[in-house]
Amino acid sequence: MNRKLNITELDRMSVDEFKHSRKIPLVVVLDDVRSMYNVGSVFRTSDAYRVECIYLCGITARPPHAEIHKTALGAEDSVEWLYFQNPEDAVMDLRRRGYRVMAVEQAEGSVSLPLPDHLFAEPPDGYGLVFGNEVKGVHQHVIDLCDGCIELPQYGTKHSLNVATTAGIVIWEMAKLFTLKFEI
Amino acid sequence: MNRKLNITELDRMSVDEFKHSRKIPLVVVLDDVRSMYNVGSVFRTSDAYRVECIYLCGITARPPHAEIHKTALGAEDSVEWLYFQNPEDAVMDLRRRGYRVMAVEQAEGSVSLPLPDHLFAEPPDGYGLVFGNEVKGVHQHVIDLCDGCIELPQYGTKHSLNVATTAGIVIWEMAKLFTLKFEI
Repeated sequence: MNRKLNITELDRMSVDEFKHSRKIPLVVVLDDVRSMYNVGSVFRTSDAYRVECIYLCGITARPPHAEIHKTALGAEDSVEWLYFQNPEDAVMDLRRRGYRVMAVEQAEGSVSLPLPDHLFAEPPDGYGLVFGNEVKGVHQHVIDLCDGCIELPQYGTKHSLNVATTAGIVIWEMAKLFTLKFEI
Repeated sequence: MNRKLNITELDRMSVDEFKHSRKIPLVVVLDDVRSMYNVGSVFRTSDAYRVECIYLCGITARPPHAEIHKTALGAEDSVEWLYFQNPEDAVMDLRRRGYRVMAVEQAEGSVSLPLPDHLFAEPPDGYGLVFGNEVKGVHQHVIDLCDGCIELPQYGTKHSLNVATTAGIVIWEMAKLFTLKFEI
């Protein structure tokens, strides 16, 4: 019998404990993400996997906002975020810090998930993951500033997954690898 | 240089080709999922990973519906679905067919993702995955009819991930294993 756990038994940390907890060295960059539902979902996933920071760029909405709160459910208070008008500045900030920045996009020469071990053979100080607009994806001029592209293999009729779902899967795969390789 | 692929280069299959394509032996059960945004996202993920069928139960909305279409973007036409008033009937249908049915829920004795190999040591004819309401999760009386629970480890402040994100991650993990173990 699998009895459901109640919220007390889940024993989650408080926002204050979260702020002081160890994070995975991963920054999520959202560039021109139009839907606040998607922004909120990414905050919630980033809370669950202790993402270091979210960089909100361009038209991407910023907290506090009722529509973001609807899906973030408070995760917009735990996860750190910064706003950059230009996504190029966000990418260059990460590169200057020694982070390897990957655009999540279907592109020539992209690396397919699950991530191959060699990506972690000489681990950088951290990773940046850039997710783009729901319709247009990551801008080519932003991709050109990145170290490469990551893509999710897909076998159906539609050309892409929802951006919050994609972020969920890629953050999850990264979190597994960080936990394994960086022993966080 | 990672040049973005255009929609023609992605070379996706048509809805008719999808109908005749080989699927992974996985049925996704949505029980009392309130948000049509979430239902649509699950259709889109199920299209990408060629899920056999989606069982929509209880208050879960059914296609055709403008709000589902907004996030499914046509995947509601490719992926097969059935409606069951009672989730119990959906679970029992799958069990009768020899499928192993797992509720995705934080519960005593649950199996944590990534899925351990032993789950696939004696593979059943297929798998069913039950996802529940956004607030209440999977009903305990439905869990009681399942073969077990699967849960996503989470390390933040919130008690759960968004249901469409959770479904994305679990379907992705299942798809990887089916591709490996069943050679689809």
